[in-house]
Amino acid sequence: MELGLVGLGKMGGNMRERIRRAGHTVVGYAHEADVADVHSLKDMVDALAAPRVVWLMVPAGAATQSTVDELAELLSPGDVVVDGGNSRWSDDARHAEQLAAKGIGFVDCGVSGGVWGLENGYALMYGGDAEHVAKVQPIFDALKPEGEFGAVHAGKVGAGHFAKMVHNGIEYAMMQAFAEGWELLEAADEVTDVREVFRSWQQGTVIRSWLLDLAVRALDADEHLEELKGYAADSGEGRWTVEAAIDNAVPLPAITASLFARFSSRQDDSPQMKMIAALRNQFGGHAVESSK
Amino acid sequence: MELGLVGLGKMGGNMRERIRRAGHTVVGYAHEADVADVHSLKDMVDALAAPRVVWLMVPAGAATQSTVDELAELLSPGDVVVDGGNSRWSDDARHAEQLAAKGIGFVDCGVSGGVWGLENGYALMYGGDAEHVAKVQPIFDALKPEGEFGAVHAGKVGAGHFAKMVHNGIEYAMMQAFAEGWELLEAADEVTDVREVFRSWQQGTVIRSWLLDLAVRALDADEHLEELKGYAADSGEGRWTVEAAIDNAVPLPAITASLFARFSSRQDDSPQMKMIAALRNQFGGHAVESSK
Amino acid sequence: MELGLVGLGKMGGNMRERIRRAGHTVVGYAHEADVADVHSLKDMVDALAAPRVVWLMVPAGAATQSTVDELAELLSPGDVVVDGGNSRWSDDARHAEQLAAKGIGFVDCGVSGGVWGLENGYALMYGGDAEHVAKVQPIFDALKPEGEFGAVHAGKVGAGHFAKMVHNGIEYAMMQAFAEGWELLEAADEVTDVREVFRSWQQGTVIRSWLLDLAVRALDADEHLEELKGYAADSGEGRWTVEAAIDNAVPLPAITASLFARFSSRQDDSPQMKMIAALRNQFGGHAVESSK
Amino acid sequence: MELGLVGLGKMGGNMRERIRRAGHTVVGYAHEADVADVHSLKDMVDALAAPRVVWLMVPAGAATQSTVDELAELLSPGDVVVDGGNSRWSDDARHAEQLAAKGIGFVDCGVSGGVWGLENGYALMYGGDAEHVAKVQPIFDALKPEGEFGAVHAGKVGAGHFAKMVHNGIEYAMMQAFAEGWELLEAADEVTDVREVFRSWQQGTVIRSWLLDLAVRALDADEHLEELKGYAADSGEGRWTVEAAIDNAVPLPAITASLFARFSSRQDDSPQMKMIAALRNQFGGHAVESSK
Repeated sequence: MELGLVGLGKMGGNMRERIRRAGHTVVGYAHEADVADVHSLKDMVDALAAPRVVWLMVPAGAATQSTVDELAELLSPGDVVVDGGNSRWSDDARHAEQLAAKGIGFVDCGVSGGVWGLENGYALMYGGDAEHVAKVQPIFDALKPEGEFGAVHAGKVGAGHFAKMVHNGIEYAMMQAFAEGWELLEAADEVTDVREVFRSWQQGTVIRSWLLDLAVRALDADEHLEELKGYAADSGEGRWTVEAAIDNAVPLPAITASLFARFSSRQDDSPQMKMIAALRNQFGGHAVESSK
Repeated sequence: MELGLVGLGKMGGNMRERIRRAGHTVVGYAHEADVADVHSLKDMVDALAAPRVVWLMVPAGAATQSTVDELAELLSPGDVVVDGGNSRWSDDARHAEQLAAKGIGFVDCGVSGGVWGLENGYALMYGGDAEHVAKVQPIFDALKPEGEFGAVHAGKVGAGHFAKMVHNGIEYAMMQAFAEGWELLEAADEVTDVREVFRSWQQGTVIRSWLLDLAVRALDADEHLEELKGYAADSGEGRWTVEAAIDNAVPLPAITASLFARFSSRQDDSPQMKMIAALRNQFGGHAVESSK
Repeated sequence: MELGLVGLGKMGGNMRERIRRAGHTVVGYAHEADVADVHSLKDMVDALAAPRVVWLMVPAGAATQSTVDELAELLSPGDVVVDGGNSRWSDDARHAEQLAAKGIGFVDCGVSGGVWGLENGYALMYGGDAEHVAKVQPIFDALKPEGEFGAVHAGKVGAGHFAKMVHNGIEYAMMQAFAEGWELLEAADEVTDVREVFRSWQQGTVIRSWLLDLAVRALDADEHLEELKGYAADSGEGRWTVEAAIDNAVPLPAITASLFARFSSRQDDSPQMKMIAALRNQFGGHAVESSK
Repeated sequence: MELGLVGLGKMGGNMRERIRRAGHTVVGYAHEADVADVHSLKDMVDALAAPRVVWLMVPAGAATQSTVDELAELLSPGDVVVDGGNSRWSDDARHAEQLAAKGIGFVDCGVSGGVWGLENGYALMYGGDAEHVAKVQPIFDALKPEGEFGAVHAGKVGAGHFAKMVHNGIEYAMMQAFAEGWELLEAADEVTDVREVFRSWQQGTVIRSWLLDLAVRALDADEHLEELKGYAADSGEGRWTVEAAIDNAVPLPAITASLFARFSSRQDDSPQMKMIAALRNQFGGHAVESSK
């Protein structure tokens, strides 16, 4: 089948390649002319035969909204837009409604896989009406990993991004789990070669996992991670997971701790710990480190 | 080779079977006469040719200590004792010293694998002198999974149990990660079929792991886990992990949150939340639920 | 001066009394006719001479919004509306804008004090333009405690509710601090009479505070809090505090832990701990408690 | 009465002064000859009439142990030793037993008050047999604040330090509460003058407390705490509180979060966040900050 693909960055570019390898036609558009197949959204739409499927891989928020706005004008009734970016699930219903007013279908799709997706396939979680999902199905089949798992119709519009968001929340806490264990092993004197312990855990343990495999790869490249700063960005999904938990009165202590650890990692000096130091100074005359 | 094995419970019994399948001779002793091969520790020792290797799979603490005490009297210089139970790493040096005074070697070995170990092999993390480890090596080779991973000489005496302890700490937080994510998906309305989302995650995602596979198995048996109570024991390693972190001034927010969640799960009514309710009542005249 | 007061519940009723004691005239309106001075918002507005000040003490959300909507029609340019309820700070700008379109001023005011406020005074944190605040000042002076503290013009519209929200976030963690300490003292065998320890802390300690005084009062009424269930509601401000922290990438581990402890306290059985139990059962054949 | 006082640092020196102001005789010994009244423990003991009371204000651990060892040789049956330092409660029973073998009594006493204690009095929590406590009572009366609170006989030997330890655990979380709230107010744009909000909270609020008063003092000295580094030591009691909680299976999420925040504050670069960065790099090709 034919697919219009908007956004050809690290993710979108690899996805175009994987879809083409499966025998489909992809017309890719991006602001960067050197990677794009066409030079405007309109050219892309014109190059596709109706009913069209257009897949967005653009940054969440304003960029996605403006692309939806343009496509609402360019596409025809019966076409379907798939938002495969990292949109907040709560944006999806609005986009679906906006497009439905023009007779255009909408499917939201959370995509996991990173730089490994081209070869291994992408995990897909999508939400929307069955008739719209059906039109995208050959593309889902091309993108997903071989085998029986890796793709799920998670529910109505928004369910795909919601499932992907929770996936990322879980991911935050799993990463934090390995990170805490690694730091403890490195800090204590007991274990001689922490990397070999991590390596050995890849079989037979309860914690064997792809993240563990990646940790071993990282330690093989830099045994004590001396080349890295202890600094981690967060991409939105972790925050939204905690917000959704608050909305539902669900306690998420481990996931939230993982999010807060990232916040702290980005502070040069912690304001709250200045207040702790100030209070200690006030009541105890404790020695505090001056920044001057 | 020959091995004396003390403790033939769920773990020890399966390990005897796996070692025998590898062609070794196991003389197993346990208090339960119906599963034991011999009827006393002394009979076990007598049945083995020196230099002997005796592997303990008995409960940590008093039971392990009394077995070490007895073996210190029964064994001969050049023999080796392996503690494969869940002893606190800090017990190992004491046991090693006690046995070394008699010329007996000591190796501590953390064992992971649960009921799956018989077929899949057990992950092994061991600590001790190279000469003592060498005497046990054929047994390690029999127990470990096929393949290149699953066994590691982690360091000096105590390093094996320390590595296993940290493994379990990581395991606590990984389990908590999936548990939090599952609860949020079940609580929110977005996702129609949470089990199918979990199932799909088994390929292509960042969080694919053995624990995820087990979660899917559990959900296949009981889709909403209605047969279970939200109650979780903790086995010692989680507590010791936090204690070791405190000793080393390492922050473990996610692992500790996971341990505390288990503590809370075992309280019928939370004393601390009674105090919260009492304070709210005092300052605000907030309605509180009376237990009467 | 004259004040219109909408909402005469536990808070509003006491505030009317305190303002009257200060010599001001209050025209109170509430749905409950038996406590109201007038029978409609219109009657209240008609009873006041312009320029009017009308203070709202109604539930946040829909009730506050509909009252603002009505007052926007009833009031005159130069009048001022004060929202003294527990509105989310992010509602304030919208209300201010809506009223400003009619020439009506708006001040938001967080009020702390609970059932003690009538006698001790209420702590007030307000936000808005200086000219609008000035019109309300005599009422602020009547409500606040005697002495130099207890009232602050915190900034522009929204700042009052924001400051009150953070106050409540701090309050959550302080209550949790005492609750955790109390549970530990009760659980351990060391201290013979926990209540007397709490009582003694009221002087000379670092933790002396009004909440500690309230804890002692609560323990005097019920030494081991046996009359209470460990169940705590949350009122919105705790959730909003965490959301504001996420928006600002500020880590709030203690406040968030306190919020989550309340969420957990309201669950009969913890879904996430069911998943923990299920996973333990899967990998270890651990005994789990069945709910059946 | 007469008191022997060992240790004349910031705490011990002020306590000597307060006890003398109450009319008692204090013979103070310290390694620092310029502040000491006598030049050896033996001189101190010789200067006191039996039955003697000797109060230790020396660092917990080795220093306290060696002082107890010496006093066990120097004192006479009927004398009493008070450990007023920050010893772990679990040391107390051992010290009591060691001294009881010589007929010497032992009382442990947690002391709170910091640099303010000289003028305001010290909060005291003590443990031990009633007969030993009785011999120290005049000193307790001299040290405690005026008024009905501030001193408690908390139970048997160890109870005093245990109660003080929990006090400090609560203190950690209360400080963290104010610190988190302050950071959020400073980070958000809503509140114009955070210091004035803190100042206003000193009356009428739920969170009014001595720590809040100290926070205002600190902000008056340095409005945005720019002179301080966000670095906080921890003194032992916080760690022991968490360890005691683990021993008793009591969840302490807020207190533990506060302890971990201090651990993190002392790390130049967080090892665990390096692992998070490494994993993000592995799976996503996420940009990470290199330390080089």
